[in-house]
Amino acid sequence: MCNWRKGGENLGKTMAEKIIGEHAGKDVKAGDIVVAKVDVAMVQDGTGPLSVQVLEDMGLVQVFDKKNTVLFLDHATPSPRKELSNAHKILREFSEKTGAYLSDVGEGVCHQRLVESWASPGQLIVGADSHTCTSGALGAFATGMGSTDVAIAFALGKVWLRVPETHRFYIEGKFPKGVYSKDLILHIIGTIGADGATYKSMEFYGPTIDKMSMESRFTITNMAIEAGGKTGMIAPDATTKKYLEEMGRGEKYREIKSDDDAWFEKEYEFNVDELEPTVSFPHTVDNTRTISEAKKMNIRIDQVYIGTCTNGRIEDLRVAAKILDGNKVNKKTRLIVIPASRRVYIQALKEGLLEKFVEAGAAIESPGCGPCVGIHKGVLADGERVLSTQNRNFKGRMGNPNAEIYLGSPATAAATAIEGKIADPREYL
Amino acid sequence: MCNWRKGGENLGKTMAEKIIGEHAGKDVKAGDIVVAKVDVAMVQDGTGPLSVQVLEDMGLVQVFDKKNTVLFLDHATPSPRKELSNAHKILREFSEKTGAYLSDVGEGVCHQRLVESWASPGQLIVGADSHTCTSGALGAFATGMGSTDVAIAFALGKVWLRVPETHRFYIEGKFPKGVYSKDLILHIIGTIGADGATYKSMEFYGPTIDKMSMESRFTITNMAIEAGGKTGMIAPDATTKKYLEEMGRGEKYREIKSDDDAWFEKEYEFNVDELEPTVSFPHTVDNTRTISEAKKMNIRIDQVYIGTCTNGRIEDLRVAAKILDGNKVNKKTRLIVIPASRRVYIQALKEGLLEKFVEAGAAIESPGCGPCVGIHKGVLADGERVLSTQNRNFKGRMGNPNAEIYLGSPATAAATAIEGKIADPREYL
Repeated sequence: MCNWRKGGENLGKTMAEKIIGEHAGKDVKAGDIVVAKVDVAMVQDGTGPLSVQVLEDMGLVQVFDKKNTVLFLDHATPSPRKELSNAHKILREFSEKTGAYLSDVGEGVCHQRLVESWASPGQLIVGADSHTCTSGALGAFATGMGSTDVAIAFALGKVWLRVPETHRFYIEGKFPKGVYSKDLILHIIGTIGADGATYKSMEFYGPTIDKMSMESRFTITNMAIEAGGKTGMIAPDATTKKYLEEMGRGEKYREIKSDDDAWFEKEYEFNVDELEPTVSFPHTVDNTRTISEAKKMNIRIDQVYIGTCTNGRIEDLRVAAKILDGNKVNKKTRLIVIPASRRVYIQALKEGLLEKFVEAGAAIESPGCGPCVGIHKGVLADGERVLSTQNRNFKGRMGNPNAEIYLGSPATAAATAIEGKIADPREYL
Repeated sequence: MCNWRKGGENLGKTMAEKIIGEHAGKDVKAGDIVVAKVDVAMVQDGTGPLSVQVLEDMGLVQVFDKKNTVLFLDHATPSPRKELSNAHKILREFSEKTGAYLSDVGEGVCHQRLVESWASPGQLIVGADSHTCTSGALGAFATGMGSTDVAIAFALGKVWLRVPETHRFYIEGKFPKGVYSKDLILHIIGTIGADGATYKSMEFYGPTIDKMSMESRFTITNMAIEAGGKTGMIAPDATTKKYLEEMGRGEKYREIKSDDDAWFEKEYEFNVDELEPTVSFPHTVDNTRTISEAKKMNIRIDQVYIGTCTNGRIEDLRVAAKILDGNKVNKKTRLIVIPASRRVYIQALKEGLLEKFVEAGAAIESPGCGPCVGIHKGVLADGERVLSTQNRNFKGRMGNPNAEIYLGSPATAAATAIEGKIADPREYL
């Protein structure tokens, strides 16, 4: 199902090289270490207070661009502890002092907010959160960095980075019923391993990507970091243009793609024609099994979570609501649903999806990261198991190292909520 | 506005005496210490684990009546910490062992769930939560007790208690626009003091009560404990009957009221004709001021919370949504809205109230206690101020002793959210 070849001569440029080159003001190639201008820099409530501290220590309490320096309160909103509330206060005060944009309680997860309101093709985006790569689906070079690096980006509008090599993923075939981009990216990571693309730009293309919605694309680039990727990228196309228009910034559309004769360190091919719903088992993302294997194991699930920057978008909620409609959440299982942003929340509400969730027995929380990060809204008890649509399942990720995290698509999550054990969504569609 | 007289001879019985007498199987009067049967016994996730521990220590892991022994998960749902998740697990396992009803994540606050699905006139209800008095508005004798007492009620269906004296509150007049039962009960407590009715049955009656909806009545009896009351009671009437019918248990209606010649330790009269919106200032409920006084003080509010067992009902959400409709939450303030139960949530959703809240900028969380108890979903930072529709404002109640809690009606809360400072709801109606 996959193969790779070592690239040849360096005749053209990859998307990553082109974008970083534009921002460094010179011709660059994979392996170069450069200083580059950034278009958007962001922190969240977990990483931001350290960035502010760094800036204060350096006497650099300033931002390079008020509109494009963003402080997201999303990991712990509304706050579950006074220490975290005080961390929020640090960001509130920084916003007041510098004019940096504050995305407050209830506005949503940073990565979803970025693709809705900031990220555009050809941009260089840095964020103090590892899933910043999500925005790469819009044709930006978007990557996670440490709080200190992003602090410098805040103040000076620049970062240093090494230009990554590119691994290219050609995706063809038609998704069978009940199989989605989440299953594909879990399958890819299961194939290449959680360190299969360490510090690489993972570029996804091919006919299956061409036909894919932006929502589904975001799910793929969001998880690039789970294979170690520096970023995940998809060349902008008509779908990208339409999405940007819907988000009110159609004028930001531009074309940018890797040259056919660029050097790709590895090239993979995947065909989704026979792909099954896929689940990552504890405690690594690459520990994947097909739903057929998983179902046979009869694994009781105590909690199901549908949401996050990976799968908390309208398309995700639609498929989950369709499966849950007229069904009830299993009595021994609890279902938590969290739209990724206020925009998604309102749309889901207007479409009647939230009503279907709550009628089925779900608890719906306000937009944010929710239980994914183990801080609140669904920490597990010892010995419990969750199936989540999120992107990570290492021990303790959701707040309790004595619990097990299984990852799957929103459809798999919805079916699992109904049965109270890992279930096959194809039986509900 | 109020007065009291010492009662005369003991010729008749109060509601409290009648109900406790029926459950003790003998004639009782205020001051008697009796053992009485209970109809409903409940714990919540904060108090329940200790009850279970007590029962295990005594080898009494049993319940007197499966349907009427209830375990509410509401104070910390979905769980913000693994320790609390493990506490939930204790209650889940107790439910499996004994058949006690488990009200799980997302179902709502115990007191709202009780009035919707359990409490009926003439019952004796004990709960390991101080606001169990809420159900008294349906003509039950409902009171909070410690975990150990409720443990015994769980196993044996009995409790001991001292029959309380009754303080009677005659309420007359018509609420001015923008003034509600919450303002009345804050005003009453401000008048008689936070210890004004310690261990007394507070009975509310008169033409204003007669015209009042059940929702508004619950707000009043909910806060009886804030004056020290053993319970708050309202005699069942046509409104009670209609409410019980709507909740699917109209057959539970019965009349029960205090005899005219019963002995009342104190009698008060309040007239609401000129009552103003009322706010409790930090750090005691009886530290009340009128909205006119409060408004002049120009008090910045960082967070507004609309919800809880006091004011998270459909009527509360309707008035708040009406005020917020077409307005935006102040940029320096965050608004958290939490319907008190799934039933209220669904109704608010269907009526379009949730949409109005979220369009105004609110974060809506799943039914439960929310930030009222200081565990999650809106703990304040040092130096911050909240205006909440809840019933308590002692230092640290909402998780940070270095924050200030102001109490008001849902209308006052909505107006305050718009202005970012304590505001007069009458200007929005």
